[in-house]
Amino acid sequence: MSRFFSEKFAGLTPYTPGEQPQDRQYLKLNTNESPFPPSPKAQEASRKAAEVLQLYSDPDCRLLRQKAAAAFGVKEDEVLFTNGSDEGLNFAFMAFCDQTHPAVFPDITYGFYKVFARLNGVPYEEIPLDDAFRVRVSDYCGVHKTVFLANPNAPTGLTIEKSEIEQILKTNPHSVVVIDEAYVDFGGESCVELIHRYDNLLVAQTFSKSRSLAGARLGMCFGQKSLIDDLNTIRFSTNPYNVNRMTMAAGVGSLEDAAYCRRNCREIMRVRKETAEALKRMGFYLTDSRANFLFARHPRVSGEALYRALKEKGVLVRHFNEPRLCEFNRVTVGNAEQMHTFLSILKTVLEECL
Amino acid sequence: MSRFFSEKFAGLTPYTPGEQPQDRQYLKLNTNESPFPPSPKAQEASRKAAEVLQLYSDPDCRLLRQKAAAAFGVKEDEVLFTNGSDEGLNFAFMAFCDQTHPAVFPDITYGFYKVFARLNGVPYEEIPLDDAFRVRVSDYCGVHKTVFLANPNAPTGLTIEKSEIEQILKTNPHSVVVIDEAYVDFGGESCVELIHRYDNLLVAQTFSKSRSLAGARLGMCFGQKSLIDDLNTIRFSTNPYNVNRMTMAAGVGSLEDAAYCRRNCREIMRVRKETAEALKRMGFYLTDSRANFLFARHPRVSGEALYRALKEKGVLVRHFNEPRLCEFNRVTVGNAEQMHTFLSILKTVLEECL
Repeated sequence: MSRFFSEKFAGLTPYTPGEQPQDRQYLKLNTNESPFPPSPKAQEASRKAAEVLQLYSDPDCRLLRQKAAAAFGVKEDEVLFTNGSDEGLNFAFMAFCDQTHPAVFPDITYGFYKVFARLNGVPYEEIPLDDAFRVRVSDYCGVHKTVFLANPNAPTGLTIEKSEIEQILKTNPHSVVVIDEAYVDFGGESCVELIHRYDNLLVAQTFSKSRSLAGARLGMCFGQKSLIDDLNTIRFSTNPYNVNRMTMAAGVGSLEDAAYCRRNCREIMRVRKETAEALKRMGFYLTDSRANFLFARHPRVSGEALYRALKEKGVLVRHFNEPRLCEFNRVTVGNAEQMHTFLSILKTVLEECL
Repeated sequence: MSRFFSEKFAGLTPYTPGEQPQDRQYLKLNTNESPFPPSPKAQEASRKAAEVLQLYSDPDCRLLRQKAAAAFGVKEDEVLFTNGSDEGLNFAFMAFCDQTHPAVFPDITYGFYKVFARLNGVPYEEIPLDDAFRVRVSDYCGVHKTVFLANPNAPTGLTIEKSEIEQILKTNPHSVVVIDEAYVDFGGESCVELIHRYDNLLVAQTFSKSRSLAGARLGMCFGQKSLIDDLNTIRFSTNPYNVNRMTMAAGVGSLEDAAYCRRNCREIMRVRKETAEALKRMGFYLTDSRANFLFARHPRVSGEALYRALKEKGVLVRHFNEPRLCEFNRVTVGNAEQMHTFLSILKTVLEECL
C-alpha cells in the first residue's frame, strides 16, 4: 500500500479469483469454465471484429441489445451489457445500495458480494444458510434491504424456487432484489420474465459459463427500463465503452446460436449426473447442484488434504478456506473425458489418503 | 431514474461520448480514432485468442506486462492494464482522491475527469487555462491536491514540458500527480521514465489512438510498485478479469510491432501539418496541436454553425457546447484522403456560411 492510498480503502480485501498457475499443465476444474469452445458463430464474429479495432465499439450496444431482447422476450431498454457480470453486479451495489440501503446476502455465496459492499462503503448483512446450505426464504421476506441472491447459489449449486423469489420481491417492494443467474442454464429456472411484473427485480446473467465466453468478458442485466437507466447512468460515468468490439460480436454470435449453447448445457448436465453418481459411490457427500460444478465432501478426508493431493497430481479444484466450507471442494464439470481423468486420479488420491 | 437509485448519484451527469449516429455513413472525425487498422500482428493474435474464449483471461496480465516492461523500460510490477484508460483514470480517482484529498485539473480538459470526481464524491477544483489555452504550471505547484493533467491536453492538443511536470511533482510531494498521455505518441514527450524518480507520479496511456485499438479497450498505467499495487487492490475489488483475452492478445501483438505504430504516428503528424496549413489558409485560428486532432475556430463562422453544416454534408467533428470552447471544433486527423475530402467539404461549407 502506498502512502497515497485513500484511507477509505485501507482495510479492503480484494476478491481472490481461482488460481491460474503457470508452473505446469493442470486439469483445470477450479473456475467453472466450459470445456467447450465458443460457438463457431461467436468465434467468426470476433475474428471479423478484430479487423476494425481502430473504431470504438458502440457505447449503446444496439445490435447486442436487439438480439438479447429477441432471445429473452424483453424490450431493448430492459437489458444492459457489461464487461463480465461482475461489472453489472458492482454497478448494482453502487446504484441501489448506500448507508440507508444496506445489502443482504447469504453467508455462503459468491464471495464478490462482500467485496463489492466494502468497496462501495455499503453496510451489509450476511444471513447464514441452513445446515443443508439452503437459503431460508423467510429470512429475506420483508427485510427491506437490497437483496443479492445467486440462483443457483455458488459454491453449493442449490436453487431457490421462482415462487420463493416472488415472495421476496413482493415483501420488499421498496428494495431492489438482485438475482444472479450466472449458472442458471445448467438446470435452474430463470426469473427474467418476472421483470415484467416486479419493478424491483434485477437479474444478472453471464456469457462466461454456458456460452463458453469467460475469456471474452460479457455479462448482462435485465430489469425494467428505469432500473436499467440507473445502471446506464453509472456505466456512462465510469466506462461508456465498457464492452469491446470483439466481445460484442462474440455475444451476438452466441445469441444467434442458441442451439449450440443448449446442446453443451445438456451434455454438461449429463456428465454432472454421471460424475455425481461416481463420487457418491466413492463415499462423497454432494449437494444437489444445478450448476456446472459439484460441491463435495468426503467423510474421511479433509477438504484441504484432498485439494492439495489433487493439485500435486495435476488436478486443480477450488477449495475455500472458510469455516463452513473447508471440508468441501468445488469441482467444475468438464467434458466426459476430463471427468474420467479426474475420477481416476481422485481414486488414487483417496486410496493414498485413507 | 428509478425510485431505487441511490441519492448520492441523483445529480450525476454522465460523460457524453462522441456521437455514433447510425442513420447514415459519415466521415467520422469526431472521436480521434486512428484511420489505420490495428497492426497485423495484433489482429492475428486476437483472432487466435477468439478460439479459446471458454477460458478466463489471465487476471495478472503476465505476458502483456512483460512486453510493456520491455517496451517502456519499467519493471513488470510498475505497469497496470485496464479496460481502456478510462478505467485506470477512474481507479486513480478512487485510490488517490477523497474528502481530504481533492482533485484538481484544468477547466478545459478531458471531460471525464469531472465525471469521475462526482461519481466518487471527490471535491474538485477546475483551474482556468490561460487565454491561449495553456496550463499555467505555477497554478499546480504546491497545490497539495491530486493533480490530473492531460499531456497533450484535450481538446486543445497543447503540451506541457517535462521539466514543468517535474516542478509540479516536486512541489506536491504528498499528492499523486496523474499525467494522462492518451495522445503522447503524436509529438508529445512522455513522462513514463520519471516514475523512477517520483513516487507520486502516475502516467496513464491508451492503446486507442496511436495503436489503433479503440474498439479493443486497452489502457495502461505506469507508476512505482506501491501506486500500482493500490490500483490493483481496486481492480481486484471490482473486476479482476477486466481485460479480456482477445484484447490482451491484441495488446501483446501491438507492443511487438512498435514500428507499425511509429509509422502510423509519423503519417498522422505529416497529415496534421498539411491539414493545419490548409485550414490556416482558409482563415482558421488553430492551437498548436501535438495530438491526432486539430482544434480550430474561424473568425467569421460560429463553431456550432460549422459543426451543423459539416454534419449535414456527412462530416462529423466534435463540438463542445461550453463557454470557452463553443467557437471551436475538434477535428480528428485521419489519413490524407479523408482530410482531403474534409477540406473540400469544409470549403463548400465555409462559402455557404460566409
